[in-house]
Amino acid sequence: MRITPRGSQFFRLLTDAAANLVTATGLLRELTEAAPQEREAIAGRLHEVEHAGDDLTHTIMVELNSSFVTPFDREDIQTLAARVDDVLDYLDTAADLAVLYRLDTFPPGTELLLRVLCRAAEITAESMPGLAKVGELAPYWIEVNELENEADRVYRRVLAHLFQPGADALEVLKTKEVMEQFELAADAFEHVADVVQTIAVKES
Amino acid sequence: MRITPRGSQFFRLLTDAAANLVTATGLLRELTEAAPQEREAIAGRLHEVEHAGDDLTHTIMVELNSSFVTPFDREDIQTLAARVDDVLDYLDTAADLAVLYRLDTFPPGTELLLRVLCRAAEITAESMPGLAKVGELAPYWIEVNELENEADRVYRRVLAHLFQPGADALEVLKTKEVMEQFELAADAFEHVADVVQTIAVKES
Amino acid sequence: MRITPRGSQFFRLLTDAAANLVTATGLLRELTEAAPQEREAIAGRLHEVEHAGDDLTHTIMVELNSSFVTPFDREDIQTLAARVDDVLDYLDTAADLAVLYRLDTFPPGTELLLRVLCRAAEITAESMPGLAKVGELAPYWIEVNELENEADRVYRRVLAHLFQPGADALEVLKTKEVMEQFELAADAFEHVADVVQTIAVKES
Repeated sequence: MRITPRGSQFFRLLTDAAANLVTATGLLRELTEAAPQEREAIAGRLHEVEHAGDDLTHTIMVELNSSFVTPFDREDIQTLAARVDDVLDYLDTAADLAVLYRLDTFPPGTELLLRVLCRAAEITAESMPGLAKVGELAPYWIEVNELENEADRVYRRVLAHLFQPGADALEVLKTKEVMEQFELAADAFEHVADVVQTIAVKES
Repeated sequence: MRITPRGSQFFRLLTDAAANLVTATGLLRELTEAAPQEREAIAGRLHEVEHAGDDLTHTIMVELNSSFVTPFDREDIQTLAARVDDVLDYLDTAADLAVLYRLDTFPPGTELLLRVLCRAAEITAESMPGLAKVGELAPYWIEVNELENEADRVYRRVLAHLFQPGADALEVLKTKEVMEQFELAADAFEHVADVVQTIAVKES
Repeated sequence: MRITPRGSQFFRLLTDAAANLVTATGLLRELTEAAPQEREAIAGRLHEVEHAGDDLTHTIMVELNSSFVTPFDREDIQTLAARVDDVLDYLDTAADLAVLYRLDTFPPGTELLLRVLCRAAEITAESMPGLAKVGELAPYWIEVNELENEADRVYRRVLAHLFQPGADALEVLKTKEVMEQFELAADAFEHVADVVQTIAVKES
């Protein structure tokens, strides 16, 4: 990995921000596997990660305003930081809602969705130091795209299963609301990759 | 406040558009406090404000196409006008759905959400004449961000309360649909601030 | 119609992508009119169209990366292709969910929504070859905007009807989920038109 000296603090900050996604998806997986009474503590830890992410985004914005030279367009760095932050928000919301709604059990398919989200976090984090050679990141955004499709497919099957005749509508509504955040997080990973692709098109 | 003569009509038009947000949030607050049979008339007045907003957006687009000089990038002015219009749409939708679904009562937390929305409208309107000195608007977008977080926090508690065991699922579904528009409106205020921040980053 | 030789393959590829929208809305209409047991086969055909659309989007991205000259900003062409693809996704999702949830009947208003979507597809497809003279496309995006408002209006009435007292909440939830995709597709057509308008503002 070769990092150009110009604006290398942005690659470092974005790398830190993306590393938070790995921690957060890991905590969310832990939460879905924990007993209901243990969930609140894990959600609290995830919330701290989300706060750390907010601080990083803020630092990136301040750096952008005080740097004469940036590796890419200022707005693209700003957008990228904001999109990474969006993913973190959905993960945090999923945890918060699961606790708040006192969700009984997570529906079948949850494990699969979390495997997709953990993998998306992993390759997103791996791609950030590589931004300096953005043209070589095609395998990253292709896989994120496939993961998003996979999450979507699983999510629909989760809902179809929830909607079984005789199900309790109120319970369905609550569960759907929580599971939706998983799907939105997968979408949000794709939006991160979209910005990376936009930068690659500009640089090509 | 210093307005440069170049493109000052855009500041004026955007200021008028944002002033509509103050009127609209005020009407929405009035609607949520009114008796059910009085709601339709108030929703009608809000809908007229929304129409006036559409006309302003159209005027901004026409001006953009006929002006040689614009204070910022044409696309940023266009996006800003579109985002202001989005807020108005959600406020109008909230009022329309409340009438259409014959909502019985607004859930606890509604008053708090409206306080947040009215404040967001206020500071958004105040920020528009200041666009000429966009670098000084940081306090505005920081507060909008905080207000969006507050709206989000309240919204989740509103839902958790709605989802109480024994609640009528159909009533919950209807109420959730209306309350969601409040949350989307708070998001949309943040998106307005995002565009202002994008402009500030470019101008810095 | 006059097509400049420079970058004319992009107009052709975008025209093909938009033609898929006409096929897809037609198939979706067919599905909503078919007997439940015939729906799966039609959804399968729609899914093939969606795949063909993915391939086209991919070809556009590859062309963008290998072309020295493009008719508009690279990012705008990329965004336009992505927004056309979004519409296709919602149409495909609507069909998939209708099958997956074993929807009994489509609610009143469905026919009207499909008329709106088919018309939006038609004028979007017609607008693409005209991108070379983007300044003359105002009638297109004005009508798409009106169609989106119409879809929104009908969608709300569909929901209000679904939410009738005594309705089965689980059935309402399922049907709402499917109908929402129709509304999102209408929104997505408007987002396509927004990008066209952005290009027009830049070129003016």
